[in-house]
Amino acid sequence: MPRPAEALLDVISDWGVDRLFTCPGSTEAAVLDALVLRTDVELVLTTHEGVAVSMADGLARVTRRPTVAYLHANVGLTNGLSNLGAAQLAYSPVVVLNGLKPSSIQAREGFTTARRMRDLVHQYVKSDWQSLTAPAIPEDVNRAFRTAVTEPAGPVWVALSQDLMESTTDVAVPDTASYRFDSRVRPAPDAVRAAADLLAAAERPVLVAGSELARVGAVDALVRLAERLGAPVLHEDRRGFERPGFPTDHPHFRGQYEVGNPLVRRADLLAFLGARVFNEFEPARVPPLPAGVPVVHSHIDPKHVGMIYGVDAALIGDQRLVLEALFDALPPVPSREVPPAAPAVPRTPSAPGGPLQPADVVDVITDSLRGSAIVGDATTAGGILQQRAHQHTGDDYFVSTSGSLGWGMGAALGIAMGMPHRHVAAVLGDGVFQFGLPALWSAARGGLPVTYVVMNNQSYAAVGAALRRYGGEAVARQRYPGVDIAGPRIADISTAFGVPGRRVDNLADLRECLDTARTVDHPTLVEVMTDPAAFGP
Amino acid sequence: MPRPAEALLDVISDWGVDRLFTCPGSTEAAVLDALVLRTDVELVLTTHEGVAVSMADGLARVTRRPTVAYLHANVGLTNGLSNLGAAQLAYSPVVVLNGLKPSSIQAREGFTTARRMRDLVHQYVKSDWQSLTAPAIPEDVNRAFRTAVTEPAGPVWVALSQDLMESTTDVAVPDTASYRFDSRVRPAPDAVRAAADLLAAAERPVLVAGSELARVGAVDALVRLAERLGAPVLHEDRRGFERPGFPTDHPHFRGQYEVGNPLVRRADLLAFLGARVFNEFEPARVPPLPAGVPVVHSHIDPKHVGMIYGVDAALIGDQRLVLEALFDALPPVPSREVPPAAPAVPRTPSAPGGPLQPADVVDVITDSLRGSAIVGDATTAGGILQQRAHQHTGDDYFVSTSGSLGWGMGAALGIAMGMPHRHVAAVLGDGVFQFGLPALWSAARGGLPVTYVVMNNQSYAAVGAALRRYGGEAVARQRYPGVDIAGPRIADISTAFGVPGRRVDNLADLRECLDTARTVDHPTLVEVMTDPAAFGP
Repeated sequence: MPRPAEALLDVISDWGVDRLFTCPGSTEAAVLDALVLRTDVELVLTTHEGVAVSMADGLARVTRRPTVAYLHANVGLTNGLSNLGAAQLAYSPVVVLNGLKPSSIQAREGFTTARRMRDLVHQYVKSDWQSLTAPAIPEDVNRAFRTAVTEPAGPVWVALSQDLMESTTDVAVPDTASYRFDSRVRPAPDAVRAAADLLAAAERPVLVAGSELARVGAVDALVRLAERLGAPVLHEDRRGFERPGFPTDHPHFRGQYEVGNPLVRRADLLAFLGARVFNEFEPARVPPLPAGVPVVHSHIDPKHVGMIYGVDAALIGDQRLVLEALFDALPPVPSREVPPAAPAVPRTPSAPGGPLQPADVVDVITDSLRGSAIVGDATTAGGILQQRAHQHTGDDYFVSTSGSLGWGMGAALGIAMGMPHRHVAAVLGDGVFQFGLPALWSAARGGLPVTYVVMNNQSYAAVGAALRRYGGEAVARQRYPGVDIAGPRIADISTAFGVPGRRVDNLADLRECLDTARTVDHPTLVEVMTDPAAFGP
Repeated sequence: MPRPAEALLDVISDWGVDRLFTCPGSTEAAVLDALVLRTDVELVLTTHEGVAVSMADGLARVTRRPTVAYLHANVGLTNGLSNLGAAQLAYSPVVVLNGLKPSSIQAREGFTTARRMRDLVHQYVKSDWQSLTAPAIPEDVNRAFRTAVTEPAGPVWVALSQDLMESTTDVAVPDTASYRFDSRVRPAPDAVRAAADLLAAAERPVLVAGSELARVGAVDALVRLAERLGAPVLHEDRRGFERPGFPTDHPHFRGQYEVGNPLVRRADLLAFLGARVFNEFEPARVPPLPAGVPVVHSHIDPKHVGMIYGVDAALIGDQRLVLEALFDALPPVPSREVPPAAPAVPRTPSAPGGPLQPADVVDVITDSLRGSAIVGDATTAGGILQQRAHQHTGDDYFVSTSGSLGWGMGAALGIAMGMPHRHVAAVLGDGVFQFGLPALWSAARGGLPVTYVVMNNQSYAAVGAALRRYGGEAVARQRYPGVDIAGPRIADISTAFGVPGRRVDNLADLRECLDTARTVDHPTLVEVMTDPAAFGP
C-alpha cells in the first residue's frame, strides 16, 4: 500500500485529473516529492495562489471535470479565496487541497497557522474538512471529489496537515470508480407539466438563457425548445451572465435580458432557464421583472429559485434534463412568429484623432477575434464586450460574476489547457491587470498561445461612474478621487515577464496585433490605450 | 450635523489619522465624494487591497498611531487578509473599514456579497462589527479606534453598508478625545518581585529581547536593565523576530536566541522580554529551551505567556512599564562580567566568478545600507539578513512573522511615510516580489525614495530546502519540483511600473546601485542575481 502522498496522487489520478495547480511551500514537500516519479499527474507551478485557483477553475469550466488546486497554509488559502469565489459561482468542481503546518504546532499558533481555517473558506465551498488521520486522507480526498462533482457541482476544501502527509504509514486507496455516478436530477412530473402548460399557453413567451446551460452542455436543448415554441431568446441579465446559453447568431436570439427591452415589456410569460433572477449589483431602481407576468424559473441550485422573486413554476434540476422534459411534455403549441429584433441603435462614430472609445476598441476585438474563445475581465468595458462578442457555443465567452478582479488572467490559461485546439483571448481592464499579474509568469512558463488584450483607460472607471451616479462634490467640482491609476506601461511589464507585449493607440495597429497574435505559438499581450474620460454606464 | 461619510472622516481625523489607504469600488462612493472637500485626510490610492493594508500597517508600526485601510466588499477583504495577518502579529492598530453592498442585496446574495463576512476576518482582528444604522457609524468607528489602540493593540474591522454610508441622515460625531486614554498595564507587585529576585539571584542570566520592545519604545529600558544586571542580551528567536529589541552594536549584544548558543546552554536564567516563546516553524527537533533552566516571560499579550512552555515568573504588561518596574524592584545585584561573544565563524569566501552567494550579497546590502531602515521580506535569505543588518534602534529593521509574502513591498512605503527623514530599503526574494507587485504602482505614484532590493535566485528556495530536508526522491534524483521560477526580468518590470530598475550580477555594481539609490529622490529597484542552487538552511 502507498504512503499518504502517493495515495493522494492515486486518488487524484483515478478521478481523471492529470494536473495539479499549486504555489507550494514547505508543507507540501511530501506531495512534491511523490510527484518526482509520477507521469500521470503533472505539477503546474504558479507564482500566486490566485492563479492556481483560477487556472483550475478555467480548466474545470471547459472540461466539465474536476480539477485540483493545492494551496499552502493560511496565507495561501487567503490569497486564493477571491478566485475561489469565482469558481463557486460557476459551479466549478475545483478540489482545493490545503497543506497545513504539523498538527502539534497548529494548537500552539505556530507560523502560518490559523485556529479556525474552516471559517476562512466555508462560504466558498460545498464542504470543508481537515483530515484527522493519515489513513483517512485518501478517503477524505475521494469524498471531496465525489462532493465537488455531485450536482450542483462546486469547490470543496480538504486540509492536510504536514505530519499526516509525511507519515510513513501505508494507507488504502479507495476504489474511486464506485464513487462516480450520474448525480443529475430532474423535476417532478407535475412541475414539468405545469411549466410546459404555461409555455404552451403563452402568446408572447420569452426564454431567458442562463449560464448553467453552457456549463452542462444544454445550449442545443434550448435551441430545440425555442424553435418548437417559436419563442425569442435572451441571454440572462448582465450581472448574472457567465457564459452564453444560446447562440447569438441564432435567428431567435434577441440580445440580453433587461426589463426595458420591448420584448420583455410585451411578454406574457418569462422563462428563466439556468439563469439567476437576479444577481443584483445594487438595489433595482425599477423593478427588474414586469408586473403581473408569470415566471418560470429553472435552476440546478434550489437556492436560486425564489431567492428574491416568487415563481409560477419552478423546475429544479439539470438544465439538459429539464429542457428535454419540457420539450417532451409540451402540448401542441400554436404557431408563433418570433418578433423581429429591435433595430440596432446607430452608434455615434468616435471623433477621428481623439482618444479611442471603448466601443470602437471592442468592435475591433470582437471582429478580429471571431472564432476565438474570449475570457472577459474588464469591469466597465465588460458590458459592451458581452453584447458584441460572437457567441455561437457555450464555450465562446467566459466571464465571472464574482467581482474577483484578475480572475480572467489565470482562467484564460486553464481554459486554453482545456481547449488545446482553440485560440483563447482574455480581454482585461488595466485595473484588473494589476490584480492578476503573476498569471503572466504562468503564461510565459506554459507557453500556451493565449492573447491578453488590456484596455488601458488609466482609470478605475467603475469608481468614476459610481461617483457620477452619486452626484455629489466630485461631479460638482469634476474631481474624481480614487479613479486615476495612470502610470504603468503594461505592454512592457508583460514583455519583462516573458509574454511579448505591445502598446497601441489606434485601431489599425490593434487589428494588426490581434491578427498576428492568433497565428503565433506563444502568449502575447496587446495594450490598447483608451479614453480615460469614458467612465462607462 | 454631518452625514455619515463626513462624520466618518471627522472621527478618523479626530483620531489623528491624516491618510486613508484604499483600493475602492462603487460601495465607497460616499466617502470618496466626501474626501473631495477635505484637506485633513488624504486619500492614498492603491491598486490592490494587500498594498492598502500593508501600507497602513507599516505606517502604524513606526508612528505608533492608528491607521485606516478602507477595503471594498468581500473581494477586497479577502485580497487584504493575508497582510492583515501581518498587522495582527505586529499589534498594529490598523482600523479596517469595509464597504459593503447595500443591505437589501446582501440578504439576496447579490454581487460581491458574502452571508458571513465576519467569518472571513474574525481571526485577524480584535473586534469585528457591521454597523446596523447610519447614526451608529461614527460611534462604531470611534469604538473601533478605541479598541485598536487599547493594549494589546491590533487591527479592528468595521463593515459599512453602502446604503447606510449614502444615507442623507445627519449623524452625531462622538467626542473622540474622551475615548483616548493610556491603556497600558503593568504586572502585579508580587509578579515583579518574583521576577526581579530570580534575575538578581541568577549567576548567568540571559535576557532575550523581543519585538514588543521596539513597538512600544522600550529598547532603552532594556539597555538600562541589561547594564545594571551585567547580563548578555540576545534578540528573540528568528521565527518570532519582527523588530530589534536591543541594539546590535551594544557591548552586551550577543546575537540571536537559539538553544544551541553556548550562552543559552550555560545560562541559569532565561528572561524572554516581549518575545514569543516560540513562534514555531515546525515541531522542534531538539527542545528549544534548555532543560531545568528557570524562565521569566514577559509580554503585553497574555495569550503568549505559557502558550507552549511553563514559566517560573510571568509579567503581563507593557514592556516599558515592565522593564522599569523590574529595574526598580531589583535587589542589589552582584557584579557580573558579560561573557565574551563567540568568535565569528570565518565564512568561506565565494568562488570568484561563480554565481553570487546570498551571504555575500547580504554583506554588501547591510554594509551599503548602514543607516537605512531595512524591511526584510526574503524567505530564505531573511535569516542571514537579520543576523547581519545593523540594528541600533527599534526602527532599523522590520520583518513580518506572518508568512504573508509581498507584505514588505507595501509596508516599506508606509514605513517611509512614517519616517520621512530616513532612507528605507526593502530586501525581497524574487518569489516574494511576485506577491507584492502592485506596491510598485504605489511606490511610483507616491514618489517616496524607497529602495527595493530583489535577491533573484530564480527559485522557491524554501521549497527546495524543504525537499532536501524531506530527503526523498527529489534528493535521490536531484529533481526539485515546484522550485524553479526563473524567467521574469524583475528590474524591467519595475521600470515599466515607473520605478527605475537595474539588474546586476556582481557585487561592485550592486554597491554602486545602492549608493546611488540612497541619494535620489524617487523609488528605485535593484535586482541582484544570486545562485539558484543556494537553497539556504
